[in-house]
Amino acid sequence: MAWQGRASHMRTSLRRAAISRPSDIWFARGQSVISQPRSFSRITLAAGRSNVLSDFTMTKTPVIPSASQRALSTAAIRCLTPDNINSNVKAAKYAVRGELAVKAEEYRVNLGQGDKSLPFDSVIFANIGNPQQLDQKPITFFRQVLSLLENPLLLKNKDALRTSFGYQDDVIERAEKLLAEVQSVGAYSHSQGAPLIRESVAKFIEERDGFPADPQSLFLTGGASSGVNTLLNVICNGPDAGVLVPIPQYPLYTATLSLLNARCVPYHLEEQKAWGTDIGTIKKSLEQAKAAGTDVRAIVVINPGNPTGASLSPDDIKSVLDIAAEEKLVVIADEVYQTNVFIGEFTSFKKRLRELQQEVSGKYDNVELVSLHSVSKGMVGECGHRGGFFELVGFDPLVTAQIYKFISIMLCPPVIGQCLVELMVNPPKEGEPSHALYQKEYNGIRDGLRQRAFALYEAFQRMEGVECQEPQGAMYLFPTITLPPKAIEAAAAENRAADEFYCLRLLDATGVCVVPGSGFGQKENTLHFRTTFLAPGTDWVERIVKFHSEFMATYK
Amino acid sequence: MAWQGRASHMRTSLRRAAISRPSDIWFARGQSVISQPRSFSRITLAAGRSNVLSDFTMTKTPVIPSASQRALSTAAIRCLTPDNINSNVKAAKYAVRGELAVKAEEYRVNLGQGDKSLPFDSVIFANIGNPQQLDQKPITFFRQVLSLLENPLLLKNKDALRTSFGYQDDVIERAEKLLAEVQSVGAYSHSQGAPLIRESVAKFIEERDGFPADPQSLFLTGGASSGVNTLLNVICNGPDAGVLVPIPQYPLYTATLSLLNARCVPYHLEEQKAWGTDIGTIKKSLEQAKAAGTDVRAIVVINPGNPTGASLSPDDIKSVLDIAAEEKLVVIADEVYQTNVFIGEFTSFKKRLRELQQEVSGKYDNVELVSLHSVSKGMVGECGHRGGFFELVGFDPLVTAQIYKFISIMLCPPVIGQCLVELMVNPPKEGEPSHALYQKEYNGIRDGLRQRAFALYEAFQRMEGVECQEPQGAMYLFPTITLPPKAIEAAAAENRAADEFYCLRLLDATGVCVVPGSGFGQKENTLHFRTTFLAPGTDWVERIVKFHSEFMATYK
Repeated sequence: MAWQGRASHMRTSLRRAAISRPSDIWFARGQSVISQPRSFSRITLAAGRSNVLSDFTMTKTPVIPSASQRALSTAAIRCLTPDNINSNVKAAKYAVRGELAVKAEEYRVNLGQGDKSLPFDSVIFANIGNPQQLDQKPITFFRQVLSLLENPLLLKNKDALRTSFGYQDDVIERAEKLLAEVQSVGAYSHSQGAPLIRESVAKFIEERDGFPADPQSLFLTGGASSGVNTLLNVICNGPDAGVLVPIPQYPLYTATLSLLNARCVPYHLEEQKAWGTDIGTIKKSLEQAKAAGTDVRAIVVINPGNPTGASLSPDDIKSVLDIAAEEKLVVIADEVYQTNVFIGEFTSFKKRLRELQQEVSGKYDNVELVSLHSVSKGMVGECGHRGGFFELVGFDPLVTAQIYKFISIMLCPPVIGQCLVELMVNPPKEGEPSHALYQKEYNGIRDGLRQRAFALYEAFQRMEGVECQEPQGAMYLFPTITLPPKAIEAAAAENRAADEFYCLRLLDATGVCVVPGSGFGQKENTLHFRTTFLAPGTDWVERIVKFHSEFMATYK
Repeated sequence: MAWQGRASHMRTSLRRAAISRPSDIWFARGQSVISQPRSFSRITLAAGRSNVLSDFTMTKTPVIPSASQRALSTAAIRCLTPDNINSNVKAAKYAVRGELAVKAEEYRVNLGQGDKSLPFDSVIFANIGNPQQLDQKPITFFRQVLSLLENPLLLKNKDALRTSFGYQDDVIERAEKLLAEVQSVGAYSHSQGAPLIRESVAKFIEERDGFPADPQSLFLTGGASSGVNTLLNVICNGPDAGVLVPIPQYPLYTATLSLLNARCVPYHLEEQKAWGTDIGTIKKSLEQAKAAGTDVRAIVVINPGNPTGASLSPDDIKSVLDIAAEEKLVVIADEVYQTNVFIGEFTSFKKRLRELQQEVSGKYDNVELVSLHSVSKGMVGECGHRGGFFELVGFDPLVTAQIYKFISIMLCPPVIGQCLVELMVNPPKEGEPSHALYQKEYNGIRDGLRQRAFALYEAFQRMEGVECQEPQGAMYLFPTITLPPKAIEAAAAENRAADEFYCLRLLDATGVCVVPGSGFGQKENTLHFRTTFLAPGTDWVERIVKFHSEFMATYK
């Protein structure tokens, strides 16, 4: 087993590196790719260790080397070795699909094959916002239209569609309209997305914000992740380029910055202020980064927050736009959870910016803003379709042209996903035949998410050493956990971050898979985990409560 | 019109740069991102100039700046300017969707709005392999299954599916099988692709090659382009890394190398040997690159060829594998046109490698090969669905694990596209109810493509100064054109490469859009264009013949 031996050797040496120079490590290692000045990195020791582990232990499973591969696994004979591939790829971390997710998938497969040795009878994937993997049914109107787009021959017998399958006239009309635009969902579209669909998106934004949007400034994407990848590729212009990223954050941002050999400039969200932004904290991070020679070019805001679930107030948004205007930063507003809001109303960055441009002459005219949205979240929940869009506001037209060229290299986003974007932004209206069912399904999903969020929140309140902000939005709760010293020692003995140790034990004992806070970043000496509240029922919540009580008793 | 003024100024200064130091330019400019030693670059003067133009003239259309954007278009007030964005993005070239494509789309829109001023009544998009944009109908079995995956509620009335829509039992069974695997096409799948689908792909490869494939070494992708992006990201480990790329080539490769700030090491295909590979040429390029300090890590082979249409013989494939074995190069075999073969039979690199590993002890054991395939081409032609896969052979398991981590950052390829991959590799078999129709449709598309290819080839033979290799495979012909000196002078007066000048005049006169050879690379003092043979009918071919004759007369 030469391969396993080598992996284990690498883990050991990486651990040693992480431990010996913790202050240089910021979600990274190796060539200190996104290393930060020491003042930024107090928070990262646990995260660094955990990620080094999850990065390599991942090799255990999804890709199992065949016998012939193992036999050949000596570096000398190959071109590519773990030591000579792109170090930026090696440095990237992405815990959401790391060791825990892989282990959970193994358990699922084992249960499916009749394994009775596990102490649970189902795996609960609370690690990822994947609604249709769990209970959520797709919205009927959307899927009826998509079925006609996939097989336009169905339109040759509209009577049968109506009588045998209940397809309403607005379903048929929408399918015909979209087919007329894209010709076939099997044909490449315009690289930026089908023009008619971009027009629909522009109308949606205008209705949402009260300010017009320009279809030429809209880019349809293969999910928001692909949009973020495009934007960071264009913005990051060398190893000194930096981007302000909230901590905790969805690790797409730090991972992509690693791939681009650019710097993550972390700014902490304020847990005690419901995970809001603090303008002083952002400014301090910015100044420290500039002092360390970082050319800070952009600020990422995730609103509603992932993993925090926080929903920003118009004042919070204004303070980010203030900094952007003063410091010439591009604002990257990740607004994929814009319809997942429980408290107050969602305010888009675009709307707030346009208001400020009206209210204050001059100051905000130069702000470059990009806002991202997706079909994956909200009540749509169509992650697997990989649809989304971003809107550019205030960008130089020649920069926009470079963005166009960049995305054209990948030809176009999935066309059926583009069509789903159109359906999301232009659902059945009151008075249209599919409206009643659409509204019922939409509200049912919304109310269900809200109920589950509060049920989970209430369970956390019953748990010793667990504190959680009241649910505000998105699909996640991100409680703080305070663990006894003995648990932290036990984790250290396994060379694991304490939150990772806790989450692994939770998975092993209950089949519930959550993500340790170290996967998102957290303040030093704090521990968290992120859980979705998508899974149906309350059984799995009670599994967590019971496990927690036993865990605390064990390590008291 | 400050914006247009600036764009024009930039074009002028870029042209000047290109003209003053032609020998450093290889599909690139600015920070000489993929500059080559002088010996490599004799071929590139025309290409460099043409691409500089198409890169920027592209800004004319698809992204039209709004009035408010133009008013703000002064660099000083923004963070992002064309001068300070990622220079690797700026350096990337992608002519397939450049100026000509944009102009053709404008003509199409104008004709649709009733414009009678143009000298043609339809635009023929022969610039891009996009079968369903033209005449090609999707294969019924595929789309019937996909319609059920999009709306599983249809399965509640199977009788109506059968009687009203002719859905056969194997359609229904396949849909149920795929749904059981993916749960919902709206859910994220395993990042590497749904396990059952990878098993189907492995079976397909085994049947094709006679050698087994390992589902764990298969990665489903969002089209082959996304796979190439993944692989080059992992392979290219710094500015000295180089990849051997055939010239002419599909520009995805040079564009992606530009984005990664890696080096393109061009090797010429032999037009006189039906665009085959020449081992001596490859070795010479490799040696020159090594002498210039390039760490050559991989060799790209596109088979059947794009843009050349060539189909490689088993001997050609062996000679590439020989070099790979001797020089420890990763072989990137772009085999997306594997079913588009008119002459002889397709031989996969994997099959040839396994044969050689059996025949010769030791020498080929260390070869790292990746083979890419796609649903976009062949008789499937489902570009808009963005489905594909790659197979890794001989990779170090820890490198494979890094590839897994890289792709997991983008979560998963489109799930409906994954399902279409399954249908492509596992179509109805003889004796199954949908087989007869499938076979009829498949053969109809195959025969149609063949007929069109030869009709176009014969038309080229009638044209003065045009030489074309006999059609062998893929979806393209790539004729040489010899233009009179006066035409070349007229092109130079417009600061255009002569082939670009020719293709623009062709578009303006006939509405037929093809891509100049300079978009793919060609030997110095040779001119070509690439045309697909997908468009139906012969009218458009006659348009080309008539235009060519008039063009030659004008510039005699």
